[in-house]
Amino acid sequence: MICDRIDCMKPFIAMDILERAQELERAGEHVVHLELGEPDFDTPPAIKAAGIAAIRRGDTHYTHSLGIAPLREAVCNHYARTYDIDPPHPDQVLITSGSSPAFLVAMSALLEGGDELILSDPHYACHPNFVRFLGAVPRTIPIYEDDGFQYRPEDIRAALTPRTKAVLINSPANPTGTLLAPERMAEIAQLAADAPSRPWIFSDEIYHGLVYENRARSILEFTDHCIVFNGFSKLFAMTGWRLGYMIVPPDLVRPMQTVLQNFFISAGSIAQAAGLAALTHPAVEADVAAMIEQYRERRLFMLVGLRGLGFGIAVEPTGAFYVFANARRFSNDSYRLARDILETAKVGVTPGVDFGPHGEGYLRFSYANSLENIGEGLRRIEAYLAGR
Amino acid sequence: MICDRIDCMKPFIAMDILERAQELERAGEHVVHLELGEPDFDTPPAIKAAGIAAIRRGDTHYTHSLGIAPLREAVCNHYARTYDIDPPHPDQVLITSGSSPAFLVAMSALLEGGDELILSDPHYACHPNFVRFLGAVPRTIPIYEDDGFQYRPEDIRAALTPRTKAVLINSPANPTGTLLAPERMAEIAQLAADAPSRPWIFSDEIYHGLVYENRARSILEFTDHCIVFNGFSKLFAMTGWRLGYMIVPPDLVRPMQTVLQNFFISAGSIAQAAGLAALTHPAVEADVAAMIEQYRERRLFMLVGLRGLGFGIAVEPTGAFYVFANARRFSNDSYRLARDILETAKVGVTPGVDFGPHGEGYLRFSYANSLENIGEGLRRIEAYLAGR
Repeated sequence: MICDRIDCMKPFIAMDILERAQELERAGEHVVHLELGEPDFDTPPAIKAAGIAAIRRGDTHYTHSLGIAPLREAVCNHYARTYDIDPPHPDQVLITSGSSPAFLVAMSALLEGGDELILSDPHYACHPNFVRFLGAVPRTIPIYEDDGFQYRPEDIRAALTPRTKAVLINSPANPTGTLLAPERMAEIAQLAADAPSRPWIFSDEIYHGLVYENRARSILEFTDHCIVFNGFSKLFAMTGWRLGYMIVPPDLVRPMQTVLQNFFISAGSIAQAAGLAALTHPAVEADVAAMIEQYRERRLFMLVGLRGLGFGIAVEPTGAFYVFANARRFSNDSYRLARDILETAKVGVTPGVDFGPHGEGYLRFSYANSLENIGEGLRRIEAYLAGR
Repeated sequence: MICDRIDCMKPFIAMDILERAQELERAGEHVVHLELGEPDFDTPPAIKAAGIAAIRRGDTHYTHSLGIAPLREAVCNHYARTYDIDPPHPDQVLITSGSSPAFLVAMSALLEGGDELILSDPHYACHPNFVRFLGAVPRTIPIYEDDGFQYRPEDIRAALTPRTKAVLINSPANPTGTLLAPERMAEIAQLAADAPSRPWIFSDEIYHGLVYENRARSILEFTDHCIVFNGFSKLFAMTGWRLGYMIVPPDLVRPMQTVLQNFFISAGSIAQAAGLAALTHPAVEADVAAMIEQYRERRLFMLVGLRGLGFGIAVEPTGAFYVFANARRFSNDSYRLARDILETAKVGVTPGVDFGPHGEGYLRFSYANSLENIGEGLRRIEAYLAGR
């Protein structure tokens, strides 16, 4: 009864763990959430105020299908300010209800059945599901702990075929927290440019800004033959607002707009007003800096704690809010280990296998939680490991 | 470069007309909008207050992928209160970012390539685009002005094939404003139940509540082998909030949840809080009744005005906020006529051909605008027609 295209989409284990954790909570248990892929922070006050003002003034109607003009301009200014690039034109920006719908739109427009998209293993769990949904083929390239989970460009080159339509990069990465070195980004852009199939680079930049050493580089610094995916959820703690965007080459705008109009009509008007404040209100910068400072502190605390418990971390992650820790010492079945930690220690963690077969044997720990909660979670896991 | 599946999605002419109208406005022209598919009203105050309260209290995070529990319960209560049915279970309700994404999710889960979906011609412009996007086939059944643009069940029966996976009904309908008679709904449910391919009834109930004679019936009063699509945009004047929902049979929940999680993560948290108020806050009912009273008045005014100008309206529409008027006396090219009315008279109207080949020769007039603006629009069109 259900289509093949859905059967081949894997359920999103991270969400299942969260939902099981919530069940436990409804049953009166106290759960520490280290599985969450979203900031624990409240949205900064100036952004909230802009959302409230939009509601008050009646900005509660459909917007232009590509998004409100000031927000599209603000995105361009943000990119021009942050990276070493000429400002993109606002007409190249498409505002979406989160970055997930942006992936759906872009891949729907560009991936024919049988086309191949190269992505890392491990990777964000949903990425290959979009590809499979469209009848295209995810080609995964293993990435290695001892290499800081960075792509090896030579492995990408070896995986290119005449059907390679896109290479997906994600830096800082979910689940590994890895920042891709600029030399490697340049090399990937170059090998894509040289490949006969002229693959697009799809650059998932949703964790940009959440970087604790060096800085993230945009793919736009290396090539124009790319699509940038970004959004407000992570950096501005705006997950529930559902607001993302794409920056695309001019000739892709019109076909993608057709998809957007049909699937979504437009992104939410109130969220767009809030997003504009996120990029332009002078008070937001300090709030974001304060969040980053806290992530920085938690990151160090979690790295020390996990290593103390015996988890393996060969290279310290420097971005996003994840530590992808080697748990092979404890189990080779990460799903079972994660479920066991949840049921026994009442700590939510995400099994590495959720991110691809090469993630098996790892657990993803999120530090989008308070130092106090991280400390409590680590203590509970310590007791759990001692009692096994 | 762009996929076939996108090439075969028609651009959404209604939006193009709106965007051209906005261009004229930016150039300093005054345009009367009779092309809009959204309420001109502001969202009722109690709903806005609930959205503001959600922002204030920090409900700015992802929700459960199916939506917050109280909203799903409120949807069930709303259906049980409004229709002659046993209440659906909250687990059967999926909350989405508008009703368009709900169609995408449901059709993605149920339509295989080559499957057929029966829908009327004319129809809402996006409906067949979803079908074609998935490699399935829209089978259109002409509906006729002299029949009040209602389905003729015998025509549906004649169009059934072994590949018929679904029959789409939309009552009150866009673009015709037609309410489908309960006897015809019963007959359609019965013929679907008898058909060897056991097609689903997809019932687009987004205009429910906006009915000026008799009342709309839910498909759930006639069959369980159905999917209900509904949302908050039209009845509660909440288009910009992007909030819709589906009611589906229990065994479809899990596969559709997989699609929802991957494509959208969840609907917006603030919109969900607002939607809960729409269905439960005692002050909202009177606000909605006041809007309906105004639509009722505008409808009569527009019907008289359009007939006075020579447009043909064989059967008066009794729902939604549209009049689908025969304009053959003036032109057989509705797109050209609509563009000409926009450029010359500065009135936005939607060409009938946007809704299917059988809509050619008609124009859709929306009365989701003030009496004053409708009057001004009709005067301008009168002058335009006199000057041709």
